[in-house]
Formats: sequence, C-alpha cells, structure tokens
Amino acid sequence: MAESINVNTDTIWSDLQKIRQTVPLVHNITNYVVMNNTANALLALGAAPIMAHATEEVEDLVRISGALVVNIGTLSEKWVEAMQKAMLKAQELNKPIVFDPVGAGATPYRMATTQKFLSIISPTVIRGNASEICSLLAGDGLTKGVDSTQKSESVVGVAKEIAQTYRCTVVISGAKDFIVEAEQVIQIENGHPMMAKVTGMGCTSTALTGAFLAVNAETLMAAAHAMAVMGITGEIAGEKAAGPGSLQMHFLDVLYNLKKTDVESRLKLNVV
Amino acid sequence: MAESINVNTDTIWSDLQKIRQTVPLVHNITNYVVMNNTANALLALGAAPIMAHATEEVEDLVRISGALVVNIGTLSEKWVEAMQKAMLKAQELNKPIVFDPVGAGATPYRMATTQKFLSIISPTVIRGNASEICSLLAGDGLTKGVDSTQKSESVVGVAKEIAQTYRCTVVISGAKDFIVEAEQVIQIENGHPMMAKVTGMGCTSTALTGAFLAVNAETLMAAAHAMAVMGITGEIAGEKAAGPGSLQMHFLDVLYNLKKTDVESRLKLNVV
Amino acid sequence: MAESINVNTDTIWSDLQKIRQTVPLVHNITNYVVMNNTANALLALGAAPIMAHATEEVEDLVRISGALVVNIGTLSEKWVEAMQKAMLKAQELNKPIVFDPVGAGATPYRMATTQKFLSIISPTVIRGNASEICSLLAGDGLTKGVDSTQKSESVVGVAKEIAQTYRCTVVISGAKDFIVEAEQVIQIENGHPMMAKVTGMGCTSTALTGAFLAVNAETLMAAAHAMAVMGITGEIAGEKAAGPGSLQMHFLDVLYNLKKTDVESRLKLNVV
Repeated sequence: MAESINVNTDTIWSDLQKIRQTVPLVHNITNYVVMNNTANALLALGAAPIMAHATEEVEDLVRISGALVVNIGTLSEKWVEAMQKAMLKAQELNKPIVFDPVGAGATPYRMATTQKFLSIISPTVIRGNASEICSLLAGDGLTKGVDSTQKSESVVGVAKEIAQTYRCTVVISGAKDFIVEAEQVIQIENGHPMMAKVTGMGCTSTALTGAFLAVNAETLMAAAHAMAVMGITGEIAGEKAAGPGSLQMHFLDVLYNLKKTDVESRLKLNVV
Repeated sequence: MAESINVNTDTIWSDLQKIRQTVPLVHNITNYVVMNNTANALLALGAAPIMAHATEEVEDLVRISGALVVNIGTLSEKWVEAMQKAMLKAQELNKPIVFDPVGAGATPYRMATTQKFLSIISPTVIRGNASEICSLLAGDGLTKGVDSTQKSESVVGVAKEIAQTYRCTVVISGAKDFIVEAEQVIQIENGHPMMAKVTGMGCTSTALTGAFLAVNAETLMAAAHAMAVMGITGEIAGEKAAGPGSLQMHFLDVLYNLKKTDVESRLKLNVV
Repeated sequence: MAESINVNTDTIWSDLQKIRQTVPLVHNITNYVVMNNTANALLALGAAPIMAHATEEVEDLVRISGALVVNIGTLSEKWVEAMQKAMLKAQELNKPIVFDPVGAGATPYRMATTQKFLSIISPTVIRGNASEICSLLAGDGLTKGVDSTQKSESVVGVAKEIAQTYRCTVVISGAKDFIVEAEQVIQIENGHPMMAKVTGMGCTSTALTGAFLAVNAETLMAAAHAMAVMGITGEIAGEKAAGPGSLQMHFLDVLYNLKKTDVESRLKLNVV
C-alpha cells in the first residue's frame, strides 16, 4: 500500500511545529561519547532531553517522558540492566521506544545484548547503519567497529524481514536513508558526506526520532520526518562547514533555525 | 542588612583576576553530559578543573582542591557514594562545596539522594533552577525533567527558607538569577534566552561558582560574582551566536577574553 | 645512533596517507571528559575510533583493532579491570598500546594503578606531561591535578630511564614535545599556547599516536609523526582561533584538511 503514505514538507513541518510547541520530554539511555551532542540536538530541535541511567529511576523517568531512546554505544552490565528495565516499562505504558544497536555485530557481547533485548521488547523503531541492521538478522555477522562497511540500499530486504519479525519500523541510515516496514519503504537522500566524519551523527538521528515519535503515533511517518529533518539539517550544515568541527557547530545552529522553506527546497524523499 | 553588601564591577574583577593568577584547582563530581563543557569553562575562566569520581581517590583530590563541585545530573549508586565521601571530607577540611541538585524533583531517587546529602552535609552554595530549588523544600514536588517550569522570582521565599535551614547560600538561576541568603538577596539580570537551548549551562554556572569560592570566602559575594560573570559571558556569546551551537563556542572564547569593561558596561545587578 | 633517525615531512605524510587510506580501527578506553573529542579527532585524522570499556568485550575489540589507547583520566574499579584485560590481550596479540597516565601523581590510587599496569604490561608508548612522566619514576611525586607544573625539557632524563626500564617510547608533551627512547630523543616545537586551555588536548595526542602506531611499526617514528601532526594542527587552529572554544572547532577542521605543505612549512623537529 505504498500509495497510502504521504510524507511531505507539510507533514514534516507539522510535526516539527508540534515539537517546538509541546517540548516533549525524551528520555535517553545512551553512550558516553554522544550524550552532550544528543542532548544539544534535542534542545535545538525544540524537545527536552533527559539523560539518566540509574536502575533506581529509569522507570520513573519513562513514566513522565514522551519517548525512550536506548543506544548501546558504550554498554556495560549495569547499563544493560537499566536499558532493559526502562524498555519494559515503556512497553507496558505504550510509550514509543527507539533502539540504536550501535556496533551490534562488532562483538559477541553486543550481539547477545541486542538479541536479549529483541527477545523481550518490541522497539517502535530500530535505527542503525547497514552493518548493524544486517547483524540483527544474521546474528553472526562481524562489523568493523561502529562504522558501516555496507551500503544502506543493500540491506533493505533484511530490514523488511526485521520489521516483520519484530513488528517495528527499521531505519537504515547511510548516504541514502531507508525507513522500512514490512510493506512500505521510504527513501531519503538528504545529508552530507562529511557527516560521517563527526562522531555520533547516527546517535543524533536516533534521538531526534524519539522526539518525533513523542508527537506522532504514525511510526513510519514520524521516523521519516526525523530522518528528513536530520538529513536536511546535516546537508545545510555540511555546506556551511570548513570541516567536521564546524559541521557539528552549524548542525545545532541550523536545526534551531530550520525553516519550512529549507525543508521545501531540499527534501529528497521517495516512497519506493 | 542589605546595605552592607557591595557587589560591583570592581569586586567581580578582583576575584576574576585572583582566579586567573592563582589558578585554583576545582574538583568536580558531575554528570557525563556536561563534563567536557564544565572542564572547558573552568579552563577558560582561568581555573584548573579536575573531574574524578572514584571512591578510592575523591578524598585525596578534595584535599588538594580549592573547592568541590557536586552535580547529580546522571547519578548512580557508586557515584552517590563518591559524592557523599567527597563532601564529608570537604566539610571536614572546611573547603567550599557547591551542590547542584539537577532534576531534584523529577524522581524519588533524586529526591531521596538530595535529602540524604542535605541531612549530613551543609553545602556552601546550592544552585538550581526554580523547580529544583522548590523541590528541596517541598520534598514532594515533581519537576519536568531537568528544566524548570517555574519562574525564578516565584521561589525567592522558598530559597530563603532553604538558606536558613541549611545555613548556606542558594542560587536560583533563570532569566533572572537570585543569590539568596536568609537576610539578603542579590538579583542579576544578565544572560541570553538562547542559553536555555544549550545543555549544561546551569551546570557550568555551578562549576564557575566553585572557582570563585576557591578565591573568596565571602560566600554570597563569590556566588554573585560567578553568576554575574556567567550571565555577562552568556549575554555576549548569545549576541554573537547564530544558534545554540555557536553560542557554546563563543561562550568559551568570550569567557577566556572577558575584560573589565565588559563587566562594567553590562552588569545588571541589584540588591533587593 | 641519533644519525639513524630520519623523521621529516615525507615520513609524516606517508603515515598520514596510510591512515587516510586504510582507516585503522583504534580502540580507546579513555576518560568521560574527552571521549567525544578523542573520537572526533580520530575521525578527522582519517582513522576509525571505537570507544568501549565493558570487560565482556574489550578483548574482542582489541582483536579487531589496529591499536589500543588506554587513558586513566576518570578511572574507577571496573574500568581499571577492563583496561588491564585489554592491555594484556593487546600484548598477547602484539598490538600497539598507548598508555596515558593522566594525573598519575595526583593521588595514591592513580599512582598504584599506574604502577600495577606497568608491572605487568609494556606499553608501546607512554604519553604524559612532565609531572605525569616524572611521577612514573619517582612513584611518590605529587602533581597538581592533571596539569603539569614542570617544563617538559626538565624531565627528558627521567623519560630516558622510564623508556629503558619499560622498554617503550616515552612522549613528554608540553610547549616542547619530546619523543624519548633510551638512546634517542626527538624534539618538536610546534603547537600553540592556547591548546593548554582546551581540556583533553593531551588525550587527543595520545589517541592520534594510536592511529599512527596502527600503520607504522617503527614506534619512535610513529610517535614523532603523531606529535608533529598534533602540534602543527594545534598551531594552525590556535592562529585561527579567537579563544579556546573556536580553537577546539578549528582543530578538527584543520586536521581533516591538513595538507603536506602545512607540514612542510611549519615542522619544527630536531633530533637531539
């Protein structure tokens, strides 16, 4: 039913306005490397980030949040426990969960953690690069660290299977982003090559997805809106930047100032 | 005795010069999100930051530091233990303690931790936004995440009670900052609205307060000086910035280069 | 045999090109304060960073990495365990190890941890400021926090002893950098004074050293190449910067865009 999807500048803009007006609280249990960037990106978008990981309080924070974002970039035992507790509570309360399996295929520990989570929790959205998404299905792939060595287009089929298996939306990010459900695929081609030279850009898109899910219950659309805003922001920032240092700065400035005309003039989105 | 307070450009500048000349060591046990910013802000100010949280060494670091800064932004069991140990040692050695109860009212865990700390330790300064300060007294308020939903001016009375109860100085930060003791209140109106869109600006003001306390034993004055420098720096940075990304960069540049004439021409401080 | 060393623009450039072409994976177990900067610096250089500390997976990551970087800036029990495990595995697999004893002399805990590591592991390179390097030998020196209070040139003799004792290369960073082996010393005078006002610049040079070791088995040369690239990048960034905030941004931009002519026109390196 590809015809039924209608993602465009107006739908993107409507969600972005809702975020700016309602300032949804997004609870992040994420990695040490990107916490600052993630929080700042959510603030620049118009949302309210909270970063907290104590098993003693994650359930309380899920309760008051509009979405939960879980990212295993720098996992360890206690954090895994907190992530699981938070996701179970979010599931119980029907709060959207975005799961980012950073480096899922890189070590048996990440693989096992990811598999354990997916055996008891149905994330609303799973976002990763091609290697990470691929490893979810294979269960035995080996990725090179946390960066992808595969093109995103090559794993759309895999993503569909995962979407079906876990009844969720899968986002494969890369030069081309794919937002995938069992029967539907949206492709977005915004972005800038230099984004790959800034750590945590993927994690940022995961966090932004949380904010969009907090204001839009249509998962596929919310995820596509988030990836479109991410890509367009990165594209403008990349064009302004002299390198990855200034890209990071411009990214927040551009996101904070994003205008409907920016989306309108740049959006490269196809239902495929 | 409001008349007895004399905080002005000269007193601010004198402390700032002392920091730049004596480079006081400020020990921070703070949250993961802001560690980098906090350390950089202390360096730009002219102080020497140390970030360390192991229970094995916090007492040793308190011993060689000019001030201790404790911030519960991303607390967990081991960190709470380290914070308590460090604060008890600081208290024993009469070293100034700045306590930042991030999101104090947001979860029972934060509330309980804060209450436990305040039952055994008298911080020199407590700094928070209106919701956080309010929750210290109420003991049962609920704040929305870590951002304030109340105006700072509405909780000056509460802050006075807290100042009296815990015999400390209370700083309420917001569009207007209030530096509050039982009998005295200083109001500062410097700053920039965009500062609220950069994560950890509150935490940075807490850290800067630590540096000022390290060179000035007059707590109320030291806290007011810190908040004035924070506000003026943020104001100049905000005016230069195209968004929250560049604000963060300019903040450090401006703080590093702050001149007496910047303070003189911008300071909006009232004893109220 | 000082005559046998030949470090120059060509050898530096050759290694840098190898990094950009082969994108070596560099595994970092480092402190919370600098993780983001370290990862971004490695990306800007052309390498692939992975930051991970779980005892469950560090050995697996060492196995797929070209170098291991261990930095004790914010150590605690579990992390110390992970660092040791990772270094033992790296040693077993003959992978280069760079060890950064941040604040080694500041507390007995850091001293004991450092001594324990050095009693069972031979790092390929140890990098620190003068105080840190000095404390490795003395075993009882006290440094002021994590910043150096001594000039780098004053500890070259100490560094030689350490290099001999632990059969490794020692890098003393400061206004002048010294890359020291038992019989050979290289001095580099690139850099910018404002670099000391940005947290984690030392940690960044440690991480970059990891990337150079991943592509060059000649330890002394690889370390000298890393320090030269670090110093030249910081020098250009410092000249462009209005303060430490913009220095940090320019640093990544300059590193990403570094040209052979930049190295050629600026390199101040002497075999001493």
